[in-house]
Amino acid sequence: MIRVGIVGGTGYTGVELLRLLARHPEAELAAITSRKEAGLAVSEMFPSLRGRVALRFSDPQQAELIRCDVVFFATPNGIAMEQAGELLAAGARVIDLAADFRIKDVATWEKWYGMTHASPHLVAEAVYGLPEVNRAKIRGARLVANPGCYPTAVQLGFLPLLEAGVVGTDDLIADAKSGVSGAGRKAEVATLFAEAADNFKAYGVPGHRHLPEIHQGLSAVAGKSIDLTFVPHLTPMIRGIHATLYARLVADVDLQALFERRFAAERFVDVMPVGAHPDTRSVRGANQCRIAVHRPQGGKTVVVLSVIDNLVKGAAGQAVQNMNLMFGLPEDLGLEGLPFLP
Amino acid sequence: MIRVGIVGGTGYTGVELLRLLARHPEAELAAITSRKEAGLAVSEMFPSLRGRVALRFSDPQQAELIRCDVVFFATPNGIAMEQAGELLAAGARVIDLAADFRIKDVATWEKWYGMTHASPHLVAEAVYGLPEVNRAKIRGARLVANPGCYPTAVQLGFLPLLEAGVVGTDDLIADAKSGVSGAGRKAEVATLFAEAADNFKAYGVPGHRHLPEIHQGLSAVAGKSIDLTFVPHLTPMIRGIHATLYARLVADVDLQALFERRFAAERFVDVMPVGAHPDTRSVRGANQCRIAVHRPQGGKTVVVLSVIDNLVKGAAGQAVQNMNLMFGLPEDLGLEGLPFLP
Amino acid sequence: MIRVGIVGGTGYTGVELLRLLARHPEAELAAITSRKEAGLAVSEMFPSLRGRVALRFSDPQQAELIRCDVVFFATPNGIAMEQAGELLAAGARVIDLAADFRIKDVATWEKWYGMTHASPHLVAEAVYGLPEVNRAKIRGARLVANPGCYPTAVQLGFLPLLEAGVVGTDDLIADAKSGVSGAGRKAEVATLFAEAADNFKAYGVPGHRHLPEIHQGLSAVAGKSIDLTFVPHLTPMIRGIHATLYARLVADVDLQALFERRFAAERFVDVMPVGAHPDTRSVRGANQCRIAVHRPQGGKTVVVLSVIDNLVKGAAGQAVQNMNLMFGLPEDLGLEGLPFLP
Amino acid sequence: MIRVGIVGGTGYTGVELLRLLARHPEAELAAITSRKEAGLAVSEMFPSLRGRVALRFSDPQQAELIRCDVVFFATPNGIAMEQAGELLAAGARVIDLAADFRIKDVATWEKWYGMTHASPHLVAEAVYGLPEVNRAKIRGARLVANPGCYPTAVQLGFLPLLEAGVVGTDDLIADAKSGVSGAGRKAEVATLFAEAADNFKAYGVPGHRHLPEIHQGLSAVAGKSIDLTFVPHLTPMIRGIHATLYARLVADVDLQALFERRFAAERFVDVMPVGAHPDTRSVRGANQCRIAVHRPQGGKTVVVLSVIDNLVKGAAGQAVQNMNLMFGLPEDLGLEGLPFLP
Repeated sequence: MIRVGIVGGTGYTGVELLRLLARHPEAELAAITSRKEAGLAVSEMFPSLRGRVALRFSDPQQAELIRCDVVFFATPNGIAMEQAGELLAAGARVIDLAADFRIKDVATWEKWYGMTHASPHLVAEAVYGLPEVNRAKIRGARLVANPGCYPTAVQLGFLPLLEAGVVGTDDLIADAKSGVSGAGRKAEVATLFAEAADNFKAYGVPGHRHLPEIHQGLSAVAGKSIDLTFVPHLTPMIRGIHATLYARLVADVDLQALFERRFAAERFVDVMPVGAHPDTRSVRGANQCRIAVHRPQGGKTVVVLSVIDNLVKGAAGQAVQNMNLMFGLPEDLGLEGLPFLP
Repeated sequence: MIRVGIVGGTGYTGVELLRLLARHPEAELAAITSRKEAGLAVSEMFPSLRGRVALRFSDPQQAELIRCDVVFFATPNGIAMEQAGELLAAGARVIDLAADFRIKDVATWEKWYGMTHASPHLVAEAVYGLPEVNRAKIRGARLVANPGCYPTAVQLGFLPLLEAGVVGTDDLIADAKSGVSGAGRKAEVATLFAEAADNFKAYGVPGHRHLPEIHQGLSAVAGKSIDLTFVPHLTPMIRGIHATLYARLVADVDLQALFERRFAAERFVDVMPVGAHPDTRSVRGANQCRIAVHRPQGGKTVVVLSVIDNLVKGAAGQAVQNMNLMFGLPEDLGLEGLPFLP
Repeated sequence: MIRVGIVGGTGYTGVELLRLLARHPEAELAAITSRKEAGLAVSEMFPSLRGRVALRFSDPQQAELIRCDVVFFATPNGIAMEQAGELLAAGARVIDLAADFRIKDVATWEKWYGMTHASPHLVAEAVYGLPEVNRAKIRGARLVANPGCYPTAVQLGFLPLLEAGVVGTDDLIADAKSGVSGAGRKAEVATLFAEAADNFKAYGVPGHRHLPEIHQGLSAVAGKSIDLTFVPHLTPMIRGIHATLYARLVADVDLQALFERRFAAERFVDVMPVGAHPDTRSVRGANQCRIAVHRPQGGKTVVVLSVIDNLVKGAAGQAVQNMNLMFGLPEDLGLEGLPFLP
Repeated sequence: MIRVGIVGGTGYTGVELLRLLARHPEAELAAITSRKEAGLAVSEMFPSLRGRVALRFSDPQQAELIRCDVVFFATPNGIAMEQAGELLAAGARVIDLAADFRIKDVATWEKWYGMTHASPHLVAEAVYGLPEVNRAKIRGARLVANPGCYPTAVQLGFLPLLEAGVVGTDDLIADAKSGVSGAGRKAEVATLFAEAADNFKAYGVPGHRHLPEIHQGLSAVAGKSIDLTFVPHLTPMIRGIHATLYARLVADVDLQALFERRFAAERFVDVMPVGAHPDTRSVRGANQCRIAVHRPQGGKTVVVLSVIDNLVKGAAGQAVQNMNLMFGLPEDLGLEGLPFLP
């Protein structure tokens, strides 16, 4: 059994980790920390876990995280970079669901995240945890930077096109829509029900923190620096991301075959049939990405539709997938749950 | 392995059965019928099942339901009563998720459901599938009438009070609220998103079909005919039932202890701590009922809050629970999934 | 033109007052205060008002509230009781949308609201602003206590029954459901979209602050102290309250005629036809209460369904209605807008 | 007073016309037809209109539409083209909210709408009712083709860029999101609450009927045939369209000034400040378009955010705006209502 610790389990990615790990046959929940809620039973905060998760939140100091085999950080940005070093030194592996280790260029990271990086040397070691691109490296990693939710949906959708070099790289567009849980479990007026329901809006158009992460990933795949316009939107649903991706074809290609071939061996990426429109609920609660590729009116523009559950394939599920890889387990262990519909 | 057939798998209880049974370790999905969709892959109608359920809908005539060990009817009312007899004769067991076998008094059933019953003799044999009341009988049953969603939430909440005889029986009130999936997957104006969202209303106040079912169950428990006012409401959420129950105390009693004792051995009924308010999402997607009991200002009125997921403990999950009992399996086999939150 | 001031215009009742008053032909918005947002254009916080409301928030100190003809308090509880005296002394009239002046018994108020009342003498003077009960007194009032949202829906529904003395008064039940805007525009986890959407729950069952207010109003109408169980619920919609009321008949009476007669002259209370189920959207955005009365199965229990928009007839609209009465204007001036559907 | 007739008032654009016209000071509702609902009081179908609209639906044959000054068609496509001729001959003016007269090229229309056009000669006469482009022509029109909802939001957003010739015309992208009321008040499974809530999806990517309409309008403005990729999405809200528009700059220009100048005189188009993100609720229920223009990271891609209420500026409100123009009334008469927030 893998002894698992979770730092910061009071947010949505934390409770989703608990939902998944509570039934993982090879994982044993050993510790979950929260400075503010130390002593409280996890199931008191999240009654959905009553009778299923017996843990209490513990103080970060007291927590025996060091004796864990793997520690997940489900914390705000800037926490993992302070604590990962000690845990790694003690022999634990670390999976950070925040952004601390995602951007290789530390200066870029510091600019977008507005803080000084506490562990630049670990950035170099960290493996970006998108298994569909980095599977081999993840298997050997001590420290995994779990991708952001938007970056997961956007990168998976553009991958086949950029790897094959069939689209231009200087006018990519990612128009992405996220459910409100993506904003986290923070008391804020903008994400109140009465503000976000029956409403739709773009945000962060001048620049969103996921842009450099996507840029880094797609540039690596393309073999050169790509140019991307990324516009995120808030949509009145709880879970789900729908990325609508636009690129200009520079070569003639059977798009459907290209996508099917690329993801044929991928357990968690489903290429839909020609003409399909995946909906976010078709992946709700599951570690799954569904993709459809279109070429409207046979023109030069490719349209890719890519959907994930932001809390699963976009966060906690992908983190468990990475854990499975790091510990030599079947990649889908504990991730077999089917999506909820309706 | 139990060979499972499903009649009428195109509705919400049908697809929920598929979600649960696809991962049930002792169930093998053998046939699913739909006159209208014969030939269509189930996963084409429900993309959430892509890669997980390989079945196609088959014509009810051609389906080899007779060779199944158990057949679930996820059909409109009036279908199971026509077909159950033949299946039982062939040795299959039958679990009807519709209302055909729920009401013992055939005349009452015919009045509320507006049709002549095709198999009154089977009504007598059928066991009402509320395990918390009828577990022993269900174990030996060939034919189980799976309870309605409202009746499940309402009966579980009133049970301890009526069994203990501590409340009056002539002025019970059940004010129940249901998510819109309770209306089924039928094309109707009243349940369109633009009609049901940002809206709340009562319906069926003069009389709802679940009233005689609840009346029968509670009267049996109370040992005499009870008098119940039942008011269902439509609330803008997908899944969930919240029953708010009111009764007048006629004896002094420790309500919390009464409820905890009654359900101590029940895997799927969770009595919340004193002062709690269970929310429907705490059971979303899970075969679970959560109950809290209040006595506001120490007065004579007991208020019971009882929540279930109408599609799980209120339909498909309870049906699988009944199947487990009928086949001597652990009662929670295939029902271990945790609720979704958020 | 009536010079209007608003104290605390950054919440939902504040912005709803602005929406209504911006088009009121006899009102002139003179000042709106907010300590925190002083200097900010109102339309910058609420873009829905762009081009329609030119005011800026001003500091409560600087605001020329004293020169207003009427000042609305759209503040948290405890503010109006501090400031109303000075305004009244200066000749302004005051309408408090909070709870400071609603409860005549100051000790009761202090117990439920957990603070010492700063102006008990004004409590005595204040008129409870439910026009359907207190119209004459409101006309002459200097200080009006605008009713709470639940109390409006519940009292209007029970009124005809208690005035006529046809129901028992010791076992009244009000099962009420509110949209999330009722919780106000405050940053809180419990009312985040991802918490409140696709979810339903009761709250405050042991005791809610609107209980003493309802108790006071209904007792006055009944001519004796009534006994009421009040259970509020949170429902995933933005606006709307649906009160489902239960009482036991003690006399035979034509309920439909009783209700129609009682409200025949009331512009803002609509008695629906026999058998109807009013939905909250039928009053969304309008100063309207719709009521239907049922007697299920001809039994002893009366069921009244009463719906309002919590921000209009339950707050800002009723406040404008009271202003109209206080200034001798037609009662529906500025309140002619039709509900939004869908 | 203008005598107004409405053909087909049982859908969402019909009831929205009623809401607006019931308070229009120069309009008198004379007739509303529905074959299926003839005889029924309008307020029985739409209780929000109780006490405010006294009309009954009448049979299309009996209706005295011919004696109306203006007739609105709030019908499915293909009805107005059959009936408009007779009404025009009788001296009535006609505003068609459906698509019958929007596309000048009849062959194109027939291809996309799958029917033979019954009145091609009227297509030539019809004026496309987008006042911000065609105001003068609308003033003199007998027959107005009211624009589609998507086309209104998309065209208004692209207008300044194409008129000024500052963007390329062969790679325009319109990524549009619509509330579910855009699908109409038709009984269909896909738009049930339990299907559309907590869900997001694209649809019609291979080709949507609004594409040729947008293409026609933007090509006229650009002075040459433009190339547009149009991807509509369904978002779980009742009302609202959010169009996110992408174009490539070919000239340097002060975008903010360009937009402000273009719409300076437009009462119903609001250019938001630099950096803004309009949300759909800021126009909910109002005849308003709000637009923001961005140039992320100072690159070559312009991003325009354009929001409307699909039932108001995208349908009924724009139709009333057109009526006002056709009858020489102030353009905003009856359209002064403020948006609903929250």
